[in-house]
Amino acid sequence: METKNEVVITIDPAKTALLMLHWQKDTADPASRISGYLPQRLKAAHIIENTQAVLKASREKGIPVIYVNANHRPGYPEVGPRPYPLANHLAGAGVLVRGSWGAEVIESLRPVAGDIIVDNYSSSGFCYTDLDLILHNKGVTDIVLSGIATNWAVESTARDGANRGYFVYTLKDCCASLTDEMHNWTLTNILPSLGAVLSAEEYIAALS
Amino acid sequence: METKNEVVITIDPAKTALLMLHWQKDTADPASRISGYLPQRLKAAHIIENTQAVLKASREKGIPVIYVNANHRPGYPEVGPRPYPLANHLAGAGVLVRGSWGAEVIESLRPVAGDIIVDNYSSSGFCYTDLDLILHNKGVTDIVLSGIATNWAVESTARDGANRGYFVYTLKDCCASLTDEMHNWTLTNILPSLGAVLSAEEYIAALS
Amino acid sequence: METKNEVVITIDPAKTALLMLHWQKDTADPASRISGYLPQRLKAAHIIENTQAVLKASREKGIPVIYVNANHRPGYPEVGPRPYPLANHLAGAGVLVRGSWGAEVIESLRPVAGDIIVDNYSSSGFCYTDLDLILHNKGVTDIVLSGIATNWAVESTARDGANRGYFVYTLKDCCASLTDEMHNWTLTNILPSLGAVLSAEEYIAALS
Amino acid sequence: METKNEVVITIDPAKTALLMLHWQKDTADPASRISGYLPQRLKAAHIIENTQAVLKASREKGIPVIYVNANHRPGYPEVGPRPYPLANHLAGAGVLVRGSWGAEVIESLRPVAGDIIVDNYSSSGFCYTDLDLILHNKGVTDIVLSGIATNWAVESTARDGANRGYFVYTLKDCCASLTDEMHNWTLTNILPSLGAVLSAEEYIAALS
Repeated sequence: METKNEVVITIDPAKTALLMLHWQKDTADPASRISGYLPQRLKAAHIIENTQAVLKASREKGIPVIYVNANHRPGYPEVGPRPYPLANHLAGAGVLVRGSWGAEVIESLRPVAGDIIVDNYSSSGFCYTDLDLILHNKGVTDIVLSGIATNWAVESTARDGANRGYFVYTLKDCCASLTDEMHNWTLTNILPSLGAVLSAEEYIAALS
Repeated sequence: METKNEVVITIDPAKTALLMLHWQKDTADPASRISGYLPQRLKAAHIIENTQAVLKASREKGIPVIYVNANHRPGYPEVGPRPYPLANHLAGAGVLVRGSWGAEVIESLRPVAGDIIVDNYSSSGFCYTDLDLILHNKGVTDIVLSGIATNWAVESTARDGANRGYFVYTLKDCCASLTDEMHNWTLTNILPSLGAVLSAEEYIAALS
Repeated sequence: METKNEVVITIDPAKTALLMLHWQKDTADPASRISGYLPQRLKAAHIIENTQAVLKASREKGIPVIYVNANHRPGYPEVGPRPYPLANHLAGAGVLVRGSWGAEVIESLRPVAGDIIVDNYSSSGFCYTDLDLILHNKGVTDIVLSGIATNWAVESTARDGANRGYFVYTLKDCCASLTDEMHNWTLTNILPSLGAVLSAEEYIAALS
Repeated sequence: METKNEVVITIDPAKTALLMLHWQKDTADPASRISGYLPQRLKAAHIIENTQAVLKASREKGIPVIYVNANHRPGYPEVGPRPYPLANHLAGAGVLVRGSWGAEVIESLRPVAGDIIVDNYSSSGFCYTDLDLILHNKGVTDIVLSGIATNWAVESTARDGANRGYFVYTLKDCCASLTDEMHNWTLTNILPSLGAVLSAEEYIAALS
């Protein structure tokens, strides 16, 4: 299986949406109790700057920008009585609750008027949300992924998106994970089989 | 096909949830531009009082109360470029938009702390929402329906709920439609085939 | 709310699919134990002939023809331990089981090579099936409904299809119900709000 | 994040189902054109024998055994016009087509009467299938995964199952991947966060 990176890619803005996955303070802000190594990695690798450039170029081309935010109701009714370890970790820490500081999108990547917000409760942007409906209503066939973490929100949304018939572009320098090893593994071994892996620069060039 | 109304019904509060469907100002308040005959009907048939009694009894028994609110984002991205007449009517009137007066639950049936709010964008409470997830997490197998309109939000949610394996109780004097004929048709011809049709009084008795 | 019947309708075959809903021997054949009045109605109203004409015209235009068949596994694992009355009626009668005579499409409306078969287990063609995926993969935005019964498979699929953003055409003389009253009620009161109601003749004309 | 492997696990057969994922000739038989290294790995690591023991113990305890088979219709209408590389690879090879040799379950792990077959078209057993419905109808809250490949059908089904509220046990010596590195990566880094990773022996012991 090969990525399509070697060939010149053209992206049609009329059929494309940019998904901003879990870019929230609890996941990405240095003041968060659970963000760990992530904010440091975001800074070292210029990931915020790359994503800002992607947002700017996408908005200029009229590409819908859709934020998928983990936004639990108080009490986490979306999490079952015997949650899996990842959900247990988040619910146990009391993070990503609707209306709280940590559920807000980080300041450097804030949505603007016209962007769409989708609340979700798991690692997949499609699971139990109206993301699929909104994308179809807009005639979107291709989705472009940026977010946290590469092997959770990005990869689960890539798997679900590919299974639903979308072509999935992952922006490799617009996402990060708890370790670089996790980040690199999925970018190398999984995400190329679900679509194409691009840099921010390649994506912006493909829009022109 | 018969309803199960003739026999004594027992409802297990540990496996039951009350769904409050589209009890919003734009659908049910006399000041709404589109509520038409509905507020008059609600008053004449004591539907609000019945539903208040159902809410009180349900909360006392610890039954989860889940409000499903039509709560469109500005610009109605959940509605396609060529909407069906019912969606066109609502979007054309600019009603049921998130944050607006009309999207609020009517004062007489306001949610209280501990109730759950689910946003939706169609006549079915299950379609593109996390209602199914929340119900399963709570071990709910039976759903009890109250809302507006009987042949839209109530019936579509009943169809979808039955198709998903829930047993569906419809509270016949806790819902209303744009005409009495529409209300009565589905209560007589459709909803009994999807579960059981009860009065508020029968439901409250079945809880004891 | 008005239907769009008054205006000249043009249907684009490249974006349209014909859905043949529950046209099976157990529902429509005179030898079925549960078809009741339906076969008589089909004959009296020339519904089979109308549907044959619709099939012929659709196939000539290259419109995908998708059969949605109720096709239960032995033992009905798709039906819960406390089924709703309609499901209970069907499972109790032991009908619509995969591999049985009654689950076959009736001879007069048999699928041909190139048609697509989707198995389902409820009144909605979309619920727990890959119909939505297949339609999106084919670029379909409009669905045309024919089948049995008008107020069950047709109406539930119309509700679900409209909620998923499809424009729904119901062919009023290519479907039937257990009573004419049920058939007429939904054609008059519900289906026009979910799309447009057409005759076979109007549909065929709109294709040209 | 920790697995629960350190503690004694008890599995309740009344709430558990065993999922057999993509155990088909095209994926696992040495005669397949695309199985590559997999049959060799299955043999070297005694994975078939382990899975046979798991099947035997599960059936003895009355645990539902559900096979999820990739079972494409001829022409692959479930795959879009611009398929992702993994789907492109399979459709290009013409494998996993309904009715063909390669879509059959491998002889050594054949289903028996009473097992349930679910057809699917992607790496997730839940996506566009009625698996969730069947599990809920049976009162299942825990799912146990065996299959091919560890990082595709197993992992995608684990992600989707966890997101739907199921507790997910992955049987580490009852699955395999195209490389041992891929197999080990997800067992070490992803699947423990979605539930618990067990050996066949640990699973069988937990049933007793």
